[in-house]
This record gives sequence, structure tokens and C-alpha cells, in this order.
Amino acid sequence: MSPPSSSSASATPKPKEGRLRVRIENIQPQIDGGSFPARGIVGDRFHVEADIFADGHDRIEARLLYRRLGARRWSEAPMELLGNDHWVGSFDLEELGVYQFMVEGWVDPVTTWCSELERWIEAGADISLELQEGAVLLERAAGRAKGDASRELMGWVEKLKGWSQDPAVLADPEVLLQDPIRLTEAVLPLYLPWADRSWSTRPRRSLSVRVDRERARFSSWYEFFPRSTSAEAGVHGTFADAAQALPRIRDMGFDVVYLPPIHPVGHTNRKGPNNRVVSAPGDPGSPWAIGGPEGGHTAVHPDLGTLDDFRSFRERAEELGMEVALDVAFQCSPDHPWVKEHPQWFRHRTDGSIRYAENPPKKYEDIYPIDFETDDWEALWDGLRDVFLFWMDQGVRIFRVDNPHTKAFPFWEWLIQELLAADPGVILLSEAFTRPRRMYHLAKVGFHQSYTYFAWRDTGPELAEYMRELQSQGVREFFRPNFWPNTPDILTETLQTGGRPAFMVRLVLAATLTANYGIYGPTFELLEHIPREEGSEEYLDSEKYQLRSWDLDRPGNLTEFIARVNRIRRENAPLQRNDGIRFHPSDNETLLVFSKSAPEVEDRIVVVVNTDHRFVQSGWIDLDLAALGLEGVGEYQVHDLLAGGRYTWSAGPNFVRLDPGVCPAHIFRIEAPATGIGTAPGAPASEPHA
Amino acid sequence: MSPPSSSSASATPKPKEGRLRVRIENIQPQIDGGSFPARGIVGDRFHVEADIFADGHDRIEARLLYRRLGARRWSEAPMELLGNDHWVGSFDLEELGVYQFMVEGWVDPVTTWCSELERWIEAGADISLELQEGAVLLERAAGRAKGDASRELMGWVEKLKGWSQDPAVLADPEVLLQDPIRLTEAVLPLYLPWADRSWSTRPRRSLSVRVDRERARFSSWYEFFPRSTSAEAGVHGTFADAAQALPRIRDMGFDVVYLPPIHPVGHTNRKGPNNRVVSAPGDPGSPWAIGGPEGGHTAVHPDLGTLDDFRSFRERAEELGMEVALDVAFQCSPDHPWVKEHPQWFRHRTDGSIRYAENPPKKYEDIYPIDFETDDWEALWDGLRDVFLFWMDQGVRIFRVDNPHTKAFPFWEWLIQELLAADPGVILLSEAFTRPRRMYHLAKVGFHQSYTYFAWRDTGPELAEYMRELQSQGVREFFRPNFWPNTPDILTETLQTGGRPAFMVRLVLAATLTANYGIYGPTFELLEHIPREEGSEEYLDSEKYQLRSWDLDRPGNLTEFIARVNRIRRENAPLQRNDGIRFHPSDNETLLVFSKSAPEVEDRIVVVVNTDHRFVQSGWIDLDLAALGLEGVGEYQVHDLLAGGRYTWSAGPNFVRLDPGVCPAHIFRIEAPATGIGTAPGAPASEPHA
Repeated sequence: MSPPSSSSASATPKPKEGRLRVRIENIQPQIDGGSFPARGIVGDRFHVEADIFADGHDRIEARLLYRRLGARRWSEAPMELLGNDHWVGSFDLEELGVYQFMVEGWVDPVTTWCSELERWIEAGADISLELQEGAVLLERAAGRAKGDASRELMGWVEKLKGWSQDPAVLADPEVLLQDPIRLTEAVLPLYLPWADRSWSTRPRRSLSVRVDRERARFSSWYEFFPRSTSAEAGVHGTFADAAQALPRIRDMGFDVVYLPPIHPVGHTNRKGPNNRVVSAPGDPGSPWAIGGPEGGHTAVHPDLGTLDDFRSFRERAEELGMEVALDVAFQCSPDHPWVKEHPQWFRHRTDGSIRYAENPPKKYEDIYPIDFETDDWEALWDGLRDVFLFWMDQGVRIFRVDNPHTKAFPFWEWLIQELLAADPGVILLSEAFTRPRRMYHLAKVGFHQSYTYFAWRDTGPELAEYMRELQSQGVREFFRPNFWPNTPDILTETLQTGGRPAFMVRLVLAATLTANYGIYGPTFELLEHIPREEGSEEYLDSEKYQLRSWDLDRPGNLTEFIARVNRIRRENAPLQRNDGIRFHPSDNETLLVFSKSAPEVEDRIVVVVNTDHRFVQSGWIDLDLAALGLEGVGEYQVHDLLAGGRYTWSAGPNFVRLDPGVCPAHIFRIEAPATGIGTAPGAPASEPHA
Repeated sequence: MSPPSSSSASATPKPKEGRLRVRIENIQPQIDGGSFPARGIVGDRFHVEADIFADGHDRIEARLLYRRLGARRWSEAPMELLGNDHWVGSFDLEELGVYQFMVEGWVDPVTTWCSELERWIEAGADISLELQEGAVLLERAAGRAKGDASRELMGWVEKLKGWSQDPAVLADPEVLLQDPIRLTEAVLPLYLPWADRSWSTRPRRSLSVRVDRERARFSSWYEFFPRSTSAEAGVHGTFADAAQALPRIRDMGFDVVYLPPIHPVGHTNRKGPNNRVVSAPGDPGSPWAIGGPEGGHTAVHPDLGTLDDFRSFRERAEELGMEVALDVAFQCSPDHPWVKEHPQWFRHRTDGSIRYAENPPKKYEDIYPIDFETDDWEALWDGLRDVFLFWMDQGVRIFRVDNPHTKAFPFWEWLIQELLAADPGVILLSEAFTRPRRMYHLAKVGFHQSYTYFAWRDTGPELAEYMRELQSQGVREFFRPNFWPNTPDILTETLQTGGRPAFMVRLVLAATLTANYGIYGPTFELLEHIPREEGSEEYLDSEKYQLRSWDLDRPGNLTEFIARVNRIRRENAPLQRNDGIRFHPSDNETLLVFSKSAPEVEDRIVVVVNTDHRFVQSGWIDLDLAALGLEGVGEYQVHDLLAGGRYTWSAGPNFVRLDPGVCPAHIFRIEAPATGIGTAPGAPASEPHA
């Protein structure tokens, strides 16, 4: 057979090694093809899945390799075939920082031989030659192995050779698979560490996972303006006053206290009450108009106190088990020192003036935006980074970042890595109310938590759809939502018009739908609901532009209710993470029903909310017991952690009635009957990402 | 403001250029992050979509760059914002082969200036400074521009400067946007070719699309055994006999005639009729037991004729407008020349024998598999490649590859590129009935078409689900299904028991659900349905192991019906491609209803099938008119291309009745009423991949 003339050399280069028969695809979690790290929490087990297969009928072996970024040696974990060429493996995220991981697979001749031997024996075939071939394979492995392992493998080689010529064994080869020999079971564990992996397939590059601390996943935020904490109305509050407020906040169960900017406020074009463009003498201005003669982003507003006072405040919070989160808003009042020191960081107009923040037809004349297209961008990035490092030096580890979507993405990508290199426990919350792809991209480049559109999702279907989006593949791997029912900028129509039941419902939803949530505290506790004008989401007489004085002990406040909800969050693991949410049907669509369960935890929470703030609503709700790991259970107990009731429910629909005048929500814990409840669903090994 | 001690140098390197503000994500189509090319058909327009966005409120510009692989210069097409940061652009696939493409985006100061100017004018603001800034921007562009463009831009610079000081213009700036000035409309097209793209974002690497010829997408295959074409029963047919069969096949409307292997058949362990392990003298053996003393994969079975006879056969097919597809089965009878010439290409056992193809407890003793782990793999790959090149030298451009999933993936990946380098019009059909990820991977590495599980999908829900899988993202971009109701290995239970109506239904489904389909012809035409034994999908007295003689003019054959279906396929563009399929509801679940429509084509096909082969079924079917681009249409005509009837249907349910004894299917064309029907849905610009 002479090759035809067209044969000759190859037009297409061959691979260096053509015998890498295993293919590895679809490694998960993976963000944008590995452009960004996936996210984990320290102490968690991290599960990696992949499609791994080869040609033909041979058996393959697969391993998950992982190491801390910077380590030289890879550690190795087994991978298990879940079926249909889909494999899973896992390792523990023991430390903060970044881990690298990759998947390796190879066609294994000994694993294949074991599997085929079993099938030939079962089929009653002559296995003499099979046993001899096994001896050859194990002899090669013994040559690679060291010490005892090599000797043990050679022992099996001799046995295989003997059996291959032993008429008794060949007549009844089943004995090889049974006690006491158990050939294949005995050989594999001995052999596998010495498998020949020279034709092993590894993807071209490793993937990574960033390990954050627990608070990145589970946190309860309370926002307040320290300048409004003076005991005396009309007097600018201080850090010392603010420290007085801390025990109440701790008693309510919050673990992050978040302060709007604490820096000097500009005088030029200072805003007056209710965002008036003209201010009167004595008006405090907006804390977001940062910078004055006293300093900029690393200075403390003199009326609040000194840097030492701030540190005392932070220490007091920490004594009480809370952390202080600062607001980082990269914009400058015309009086900010940077305007003189670094004029090139701002965009100048043809008349020499600096361009205000503007988005036609709107202009914000009390602030200058920073120009990320400046030729001096490297010094600018360092300068902005130094703001964070300054406050980290003061012990602050959590930051709420104002409008990050109006600053360049490459800056954030660099900055967050830079900050995590200084302290892998630092946490940044992104306040970007913008188009979804930009919100998600900020999370991809590193933000730990993100504000969301929760405030404007009211009905059951809206909320279910929104949760589905946030939990979808390509979002859940990096985006940690932080749900706020209100902020100083957001007094929703629902809160304006829904009365006390609306506040209760929105609190329960924010606190149970996701593990991170927060409230703009004093106004929420006091059910503040009057907008600046009709159609506005701004508060009337907002603290943003004037001092306020709050009587937080006012009868009818929500304080005790908030404390109860936070206690339920602390005591129930499913509410401390975002996976394992499921919506259930009800015959009354104003009743929103969802459950949360956590892998490796027996706890199951069922939340039922009456989204009608005016009227009593009742109906039959039909929990998907199978999804809750309660398949086949006839009766079970539910315990209302909010109101204290205990009910015996049975499979099928159960009746619920919620009076908004009393309490518009149940937060049930399902209490296991003596028997019939296994572990909660979603245990990682059985519920892969795919 | 002195930086804190912790500042100093960066731990994280900064990018070389920090001002690339645009981010580009999710470029589609893209297979496994660009590891494999997407697929297109020559003459098509190729649409590329991406998420493109930047920080802030500035406007961005985006371009699609593309070139033929190997070309130096990139061509450029505009990209259009569809909304929500999602963009689309397109270019024509003018030639066979590979095109590279990438997406580029930048924040554009002039586009932004135009947009802001319009909004400032609308808001009644003083635009004097805006006009001056526009002059500065356009002056810079003029500096980059050449010749006339530069002069024209400078003309606008002067105008802008003049207007910025012209009280009349500043008092009534709307004139700038109106005739005859139309400032922004006039400036942009002049400016954009000279935009400053030095801070432009391009992804790290380009993606690619492989352009195949039309027959890769739309083909009708007819398989037959040339050895069964002799006019005399019991006599081995020749290529000359087979050529006699061609006009009939052409008249039935097929365009590919596919022959099982035409090579010498081995003698060692030759199989007898009905796959008996012992053959009698004179038994012809299986054509898939390739190779004997007369030669191997590049030889012709002497009883079929000579290589010249084969060429004459191929030429006759081409005269009739058909192509010949050959079967490539890389396995060797023990008598194949390679066994002696290249013993190292086979796996030897410890006793020196070559290992048969086996998968315990099955053994195939008439063939040896090829060992892709041979040390001689490079020569092996060349040798296998040369088989294809040999037949390509004989003018064959289509191959059906037998069991590619039992040969190493890296080989196929290399081979197919190699073959396409020799002839970019070559087409390979993968015959891999295996787990989905392996089937799909073969398509990824380059197979043009693939066998599927269609033969075993019978009911409406099964078929709808299967079509959804085949059309899902991550499959449709590279996998072109080829539906076969039967093959020499597959006589399904449905065909065994369903009688003539089952054959008609399965033909209509195969021929209309997908654009590529085929039949194992003579048995299908003659409604052959007797299995070798009960529970088997093998034909009794299969041609695989013995000569058969077919009386194709036998009364009751399906020949005319097949011809009618193929004519309908040729005359209706929606049946020549796989996108645009949609299932519609019916109140009788035995009636399966689906429609096909094609982008840029007004044609719409509606297929209704009675999946009950015994009884008349009728019911109301409810076409989704909006999905068909017929929203708001009250009445329309449907024309049954199969039976010839014409009906006037109206919006809402319409009645259908199908008698399996007459014809169990309708293939309707919707005939547009005089007015009210626009273009078909799915026009690319308005229906993106995402």
C-alpha cells in the first residue's frame, strides 16, 4: 500500500504528545474562563466539578490539584464520577487568601484491567492471559514505586503469575474477587499512588478561588449618621455621642455599624436642607461633599472629634462584638486638598475651571468627580489606595464604596487585590445601582458584597424571579447580594404607604432571603415614611443635609421586632448563606412562601409572608417536602420563631393565616419528627453545581 | 495630607495602561472559551454578540474585527447596541475556511460630547463652553486625520469656535441640531474613522469560525450496499450495478449516496449470515471487517470492481447531482496488510497475539482495533490521514466515520484540520452512539455532522425535549445533527411494529426536524421490519453479513412518498437549517406540532404528525402566531404540501384530523394573506443568540 502523492508532510502540526486521551471540559466554578477567581469562605469545603472523559471503554482516573497561591507544591484530592462523565472533588479552604486549583485525568491501564478482569470472571471466560497481563502492568508500577510499596506490588506480581497457571484458580476464578483475596479491591489502593501519569491531561492554566472571611457571606448592617447622635437637638453629634448608641445596636443583633463619610464637609456650593442648592450659615452640608481646609479623605470632621476619638469609637464597637464600616466616596468638594495638590486628577474645561459631576441635564455643583483618564493615573491609583490603607491602619476592615460604577473598572480590579494583599480579611460593599452587567462586573473584579434592586421588588413573583437571577450560574459564583429595605437615598413607595406591616415585611424579607442585609437604622426603627415631596424617594428633612435628633425609644418603634429577626438569623445556619433557597406554591398569591436549607446542616427554615399590608390573608401552602429532604414524611412540627407558635403539619397543603395588624410573617423552623428525616438536601456530593 | 507609612510601593502590579475603561464579556458564539472554532456556512452572514460596557455615563464605540486565517489585515464592521450593554455586529462568510474575529471597544470623547451637547441644548443650558470643548476634541481628530478629512474636521472646529461666541446661536442653540446644520449628525461620520483608539480594549485573543459548505448544513443521505445491487439474486453486485441504482435515488431527491466499506473483506474469523461466528464458504462477511490479501483501506473489493470502476460510479453520481460518501472504519481484519506492515499499531498480549476488539463480555474476533497509545503514533496518524487523502484524490469529499469515539480525540482534532487544509469542502459525519459529552466533543473537534438518538425518540414530549437539547447554547454552535430513522444496525421497535404509518411518520420527522437526514434506503423503501430475533434491533438476514436482492418496485413501497418529502425540503428554506424550530400546543397529545422558520426568509412551515400509528387522531392545535411573526393576523391560508389540501385558518385553535391509514402527517406552508405579515421572526439583528 503505497501512500498517495498528496500525503507527504503534515499541514497541521501534531501535538507534542498525541496520547493524552483524556479530555477535561466545563470545570466549575469558573468565572469568565478563569479571568476572575471564584469565591469561598474560610472553613468551607470547596467543591470542583468537571466533565472528564476519554475515547473507548477504558477506565479513567481523575484528581483535583490545589495549592495556596505562592506555594510550590500541589496537594491532591480524589475525584469521583457522579455519572455521565461528570466528576466532583473537593478540598478545605483552610486560610484566607487565594487558592489555585486544576483538574487532571488519565486513562489508567490498571484500573481498566481490574474492571475488565471482574467482567471476564463474571462472564466465565478464560482469564489466564488476563492474569499475566495484570502481572506485567503491576511489575511496571513496582518499578516506579519506592520501598515497601514496591515490594508489596511485586508480591502481587508473583501471585498473579502463579494464579495464571493454577488450574484450580482458572476453574473457579471467582475466588480471586472474594475473601480473603479480593484481588481488585486490594491491588488498586496499593497501585494508584504509583500510577503512570506521563500521558495525563491537565488544562493549560489553573483556576483560582478567593477565600474570604465569614462576614463577607453573613452580616447584618446598621447605618446611622454620627452627627445626629447628640443628646441635645440641633447640636452636632460626636464620636463619643455615637459610641453611646452602640449598645442598643448590639442588643438589636447587628454586627456591622456603617457610618456615612466622617470627613470634613466642603463649603463651596454646600447644599442646604432638603438638597437645596443654597445653604444657610450653620447648615452642615452633605457628608458626601468631602474635603475642606481641615483635610480630605483621611481627615475626620472636626465636629465629630479627632482621629483618636474615631479609634475609641471603633474600639468600643469591637468590644461589643461589632465592626465599623466606613464609606469611601471618591469625589471631592471644591475645597478638598487634592484640588490644589493634584489638580491633574480632575478634568479641566477650556476656561480652566474643573468640571463638576454632571449627567445632563443634572449637575452636582458641590463635588468634582475624579478623572480616571488623567495622565497621572498611576499616582492617582496609589493616592486612592492610600485612603483605604490609612483607615485600615486605624483598624477598619469593612468599607462601603459609593458609586463604584462611575470609577474605572481596571482601578477596582487592581485596588482590591492590593488591599487584600495587605489584609485578606478586608471587605468591600459595592453601592452600584446600575445596569446588571456593570453591577455583576464589579463583583467579578473583587467587591465582596453588593447592593441590589431588592428595595423595588415587592410581589412574590418579582422576588422569586429576582432570587432566581441572583442564584443563577454565572452570578452566584461571585455576587453576594446585600439587601437593604431602605437607605438614606431610598425611601420606597412601599414604605411610604404600607405602614408598620410594610416595614415588618420588608425587614423579614431582607433578613431571610439573603445572608447579608442592612437597614438605615434610626429611620427604619421609627417607621419614618414621609418623602421630601410626592413621587420622591428622598426622606423629608433628610439627615443627608441637616442634623436630626431621633427619639429611638418612641412607643411603637420596631426595635424589639428587629432584634427578634436578627436573633433568628444568628441561631439558624440556613439564614447565614444564600444557597438552598426554594419557593413553594400557595393558593393565595399574596402569601409568599420560601424555604432555606444549608448543606451539611439539618436545619430547615420556612418563611411565609403576607405581602398585603392592609388585610388579613390566609391560604393553603404546599411545601415541596422532597426538596426539603422530607420525602415520605407524614407529619412534622413547625415552630414559628417569630411569634412562638408550634404546629403539627402533614404532607400536602397546610393552612396559614397572617394578620398584618399583628405580625405579617412567619419564620418557621421545621422540627424533625423522631424518625424519617435524613440530612438536609443539597449535601454537596450529591448536588453538584451543574 | 501625608500618606501613611503602609503606603509605599504596590504589592499588585498595575496594568501597563490603566485607562482601558471598556470591558468586553461573553462574546458569542464561542466554544469552550475559544478552544474550538464556531461553525458557519459559506454565504451566510455571521453575527457576533458581546456585552460591552464602561464605567460612568460616557458613550462607547465598538467594532467587530475579522479576517481570513492567515490574512494580515483586519477588516472592521460596526457594532450596534441592542440595549442593556449587549451589542451585535456581523460580517459575511465569503469563503470556505477559517475566519478570526474579535471585538474592540473604547470610550469615545466625541460621541460622548455629541450626546451631552444634545441633552444640554434640550435642557436649555449655556453651551458656550461645550462648543469650545468640542472644537478642542475635533482639532485633535483633525491632527490624526489625513487629507480632505482633516480639512473638513478643521472646518467644523472653526464653526464651533464661532458659534461659541455667537449670541444668536447661544440664545437659540436648537438651530445647531436642525437643518441645515445638524451638527452632531454631520460631525460623527466624519470623525469616527479618526477616533483615538489608543485606550481601546481588545480581548487577549481572537476567536474563530470555521466556514463549511452548504451541504454540511443541508443534506439528504441514502445508504445502500453496492454488493446487493446485482440484477441476479445471489450474485455479488458491482459498481456498475450500483450505478444503475443511481437515477432512482436521484429521482427520490437524495443528494448523498453513502456506501458501507467497499474494501476487501477479511477471511479470518469471517462472520456468517445473521452475525454467526462461523461462516460457510461463499459467505461474503461483514464489509466492516476490513482488509485481506488484496489490500486494506485504500483497496477496492475485487467483486465490486476496480478503482477505475469506483471512479466511474462516483462520476455517474455527480452527473446526477449527487455526491458519494464513503465509510471510514479504522479497524482491521486479521488479514489486513497493516497487521504485517505495522504490527506496532496493534496491541499485543503477553502471548504475542494481537488483542481483538473487545468490551467484556463481548469480543469481536473478526477485527483488531488500532492502538492509539502506540509509540509509533505519529506514523499511525499519518497512515490514517493518508486513507482519507487517498479517497479525496479519487474525488470523494464526504465521509461517514465509524465509531469515532473509540479512537483518540487528539487524533480527530488534528486529522480534521489536516483534511480541511487539503480541501476545506470535505465533510465528515460522526457515527458515535455514546454518552452525550463524547458525542458533542467529537463535533467540537471538527466533525461536520453527527448521528443522534433520534431513532429512539418517539413521542412528542421526547422529541421536543431532544430538540431543545440539540438547540441549546453550548450545543447548537457546533453540533449538526443528522437524523436517521433506520440504519443497518438500527431497526427500532417502532419500525418493527408500527407498520407503514410508522415509516411515514419517522421519515417526515427526520426530514423536517433537522436539515440533515438519511435513510438506510432499500429496507426503508420496502418497509422491512422483521428483526433477527425478538428484542433485537438487527435486521433478519441483514445485508451486513449476506447478499440481498431487493425488488424496489414492489407495490406498496414508500418511494413516491419519500420523493415528495424530499421535494418539500428542497423547496422550503426553513427545512434546510436547524434554527427557528418551535413546538406548539395541541389538545390531543398524540398530535405533535412544530413550526420552522428561517431568518431573512418569509417562508413558514408547520408540521403536524399523528404519533399514533393505529388510529385516526384529531384535535385542536394552537399555533403561537406571534412567534411566527403573524401577530395580529386574523385569518391565513395553510397549504398541505404533502397531501395538497388548502385551508383557511384563523387565530386561535384550528382543527386537524390525521388518518394513519391515509397519511399520518401534514407539512403545511403558511401562505401569507395579502397584508399583515411582516418578515419572519428571528431576523438576526432583532433576535440575538443570548
